Amino acid sequence: MALRVVSVLKRRLGGPGQKLLRSGNLLSATQHRWEKMPSSVGFPVTSRRSFSKTALIVDVDHNLGIATMKMNNPPVNSLSLELLTNFVIDLEKLENEKRCRGLIITSASPKIFSAGLDITEMYGKSSAHYAEFWKAVQELWLKLYMSNMVVIAAINGSSPAGGCLISLAGDYRIMADNPKYTIGLNETLLGIVAPFWFKDTLVNTIGNRASEHALQLGLLFSPTDALRVGIVDQVVPEDKVQDTALNVMSRWLSIPDHARQLTKTMMRKPTVDRLLKQREADIKNFVSFISRDSIQKSLHMYMKHLKERKE
Amino acid sequence: MALRVVSVLKRRLGGPGQKLLRSGNLLSATQHRWEKMPSSVGFPVTSRRSFSKTALIVDVDHNLGIATMKMNNPPVNSLSLELLTNFVIDLEKLENEKRCRGLIITSASPKIFSAGLDITEMYGKSSAHYAEFWKAVQELWLKLYMSNMVVIAAINGSSPAGGCLISLAGDYRIMADNPKYTIGLNETLLGIVAPFWFKDTLVNTIGNRASEHALQLGLLFSPTDALRVGIVDQVVPEDKVQDTALNVMSRWLSIPDHARQLTKTMMRKPTVDRLLKQREADIKNFVSFISRDSIQKSLHMYMKHLKERKE
Amino acid sequence: MALRVVSVLKRRLGGPGQKLLRSGNLLSATQHRWEKMPSSVGFPVTSRRSFSKTALIVDVDHNLGIATMKMNNPPVNSLSLELLTNFVIDLEKLENEKRCRGLIITSASPKIFSAGLDITEMYGKSSAHYAEFWKAVQELWLKLYMSNMVVIAAINGSSPAGGCLISLAGDYRIMADNPKYTIGLNETLLGIVAPFWFKDTLVNTIGNRASEHALQLGLLFSPTDALRVGIVDQVVPEDKVQDTALNVMSRWLSIPDHARQLTKTMMRKPTVDRLLKQREADIKNFVSFISRDSIQKSLHMYMKHLKERKE
Repeated sequence: MALRVVSVLKRRLGGPGQKLLRSGNLLSATQHRWEKMPSSVGFPVTSRRSFSKTALIVDVDHNLGIATMKMNNPPVNSLSLELLTNFVIDLEKLENEKRCRGLIITSASPKIFSAGLDITEMYGKSSAHYAEFWKAVQELWLKLYMSNMVVIAAINGSSPAGGCLISLAGDYRIMADNPKYTIGLNETLLGIVAPFWFKDTLVNTIGNRASEHALQLGLLFSPTDALRVGIVDQVVPEDKVQDTALNVMSRWLSIPDHARQLTKTMMRKPTVDRLLKQREADIKNFVSFISRDSIQKSLHMYMKHLKERKE
Repeated sequence: MALRVVSVLKRRLGGPGQKLLRSGNLLSATQHRWEKMPSSVGFPVTSRRSFSKTALIVDVDHNLGIATMKMNNPPVNSLSLELLTNFVIDLEKLENEKRCRGLIITSASPKIFSAGLDITEMYGKSSAHYAEFWKAVQELWLKLYMSNMVVIAAINGSSPAGGCLISLAGDYRIMADNPKYTIGLNETLLGIVAPFWFKDTLVNTIGNRASEHALQLGLLFSPTDALRVGIVDQVVPEDKVQDTALNVMSRWLSIPDHARQLTKTMMRKPTVDRLLKQREADIKNFVSFISRDSIQKSLHMYMKHLKERKE
Repeated sequence: MALRVVSVLKRRLGGPGQKLLRSGNLLSATQHRWEKMPSSVGFPVTSRRSFSKTALIVDVDHNLGIATMKMNNPPVNSLSLELLTNFVIDLEKLENEKRCRGLIITSASPKIFSAGLDITEMYGKSSAHYAEFWKAVQELWLKLYMSNMVVIAAINGSSPAGGCLISLAGDYRIMADNPKYTIGLNETLLGIVAPFWFKDTLVNTIGNRASEHALQLGLLFSPTDALRVGIVDQVVPEDKVQDTALNVMSRWLSIPDHARQLTKTMMRKPTVDRLLKQREADIKNFVSFISRDSIQKSLHMYMKHLKERKE
């Protein structure tokens, strides 16, 4: 059992964290922040410690060198601006802990890994808000896809759109063998388009043709189909997902870190560079696209549909 | 049953259509042409209408929003300059009909989808003719590969070389389960080389290694093997090909057009741009290659072989 | 049975061959050398002849137009600088023999195809030596990957790292169905990183995701797994490897050479150009990487481990 030390600091970051995104350089800003925070340095040397905040529960097992991050934003782990911001901050923090070599990402909610980007962040807000939100989405992907840690997605529930992106950004994907769960980039179903770097990440994983097919139709795959097409690497019984993740992780951690990290960088850097070269243009594209009347109308209809279904 | 309104206009285009290809810009030229033709606007508002001409039979079902184009150039649906020209004109016309959202391409001849490029257009003609022919081949691929419509190939017969290219340029491929039928880019068997954009289209569909293997050996795949390697998406009994195409089409048409089209463009534009950047050079390459004595001799032998087999 | 004419000349090349690599242009230098050697022109017109030297046994069957090259550098066919140099020279020689259209690469040692690059060439030597060695590795890959001959790897034993690279550089791979044999780019297990062109060759063969997975973990595949992932094309009983190679070769040789060669070039040139554009930088990278204390220590440990296992 993990000992959970609730970090009050992290909770307080909800507000300021958002502001950090507005500054030119998220990375240096947040890093600076953490450096000044006394509690972020020198964790009590217990064999295991953890911190939690509103929406993310992070446990670090220092003996194993493995962190587990549970998304805990009920009911569906929507990726709100606040969650994204904290996700990035936690990643940076773990990245800087030398003893932490692997990260398992999973969900604290039964049945749902993550429903993806929070639609309320994309509806009826200002252009500045859309830009801030999009920058945070980019940042999370950049951090996850190039993490020096071994990142394993323990997909214990449905994982559409942004949830799928988080899974794809890892090094290995294990999904619960429950035919009710699905995974995929289903953006076209909502009348929107997956950005090019979502597409690149999918193509890198399942190849060009399968991606074209899946993206055009907004396919959501059952675990069996996801395994067949290569969106996930392994499908196991629901109660074995976490154990399997730990077993797979120990295999990956048996490889010398430095050689593995250089290899990962060699494979992924060209894809990441494509976004970095046009990051501002990508934000502008998103803001302009999402602000269209037709898209706002689509999102409104979709939210109404979701609400009605709930009632 | 479709009501077929024979379009006399289209038939008359055989000659002028070829000339259009000589002008600098085929696209704007033919578009202009159609805009001025009264019959191309305001079709009688029947639930279904069709037009045919020498070698292409086009039916449009306005209720479903689906056009069916049957290649009808016996005995083997060779892609002559005239057929290519009319194919492009028909595509543009359908592309401009807002109610037409999907296109099924199939063959009116039993046993053969299309035998590919018409060899007589590549043998014993002038350089100008070769250039005109090649430009038309490029044009057809550019139009098909980037069509805003959902394009499904209902492959009801053999589909080598150029026939395979037409299939690959669509969004989905359904092939008749007849082991006598084959599909593939078999250019090397004739001593010639598939151009780089044929290769790119194949690589985008079945990946690099399978393409290298198939292209070097000029492999013609049985339906079962084509499905296994990914050249086609589905193999069904011969009498189910058209029905399956309609069923699959209705699935694709359930996706919002705009999001689907943007996604398709995102996937395919880089490949198309590669040809657009060096289109003239590609034509020159083709003309110079096909004019070689050795290649002309190869083609002569092949035509003689075909003729003898027929007798 | 092949008649083996031992070429004394080749044996004598051991020393000078190494020096040739130091000259600016290996290709023109060695070509020049061979042109001046009388015995390299006008082989006795027997139906079959062969030559051997310390580490490579080459048989040419002029009737079939097929050369067989057996690596014969016991105990594990390590790719020493001398072997690499002679390998390149033999390849050039065969490339220039018009009647030789196909090459089968295999091992004269039971159980091992090749253990890969000779670690003793990378440990405790001068920077100049490392640079010379790396240039020879590049040269072999460049020659093999772009060979005008059909190159088939008859993998009759384990084939890690550089051995795997040689296999991947061919056109077709047949592996003996012995579960004790493995194949793969396992560099990370030694704490080193496969260079980008090793990676490119693997990605071209098995795709991006499988490569990322295999390279990060340094996976060594059993024949069955290698077939499943696509590292090899065929797995056959151990005593059928050579016969299968000959059968497959006759299929490939039925394709007109010129068309096949142009197709191969079209597929592979972009990958080769990537190395050619930064060949010197790649050598510098290697020298700087391999000279690091940490890497030298890793290699020392590994060599010690190998030695202890032997004793």
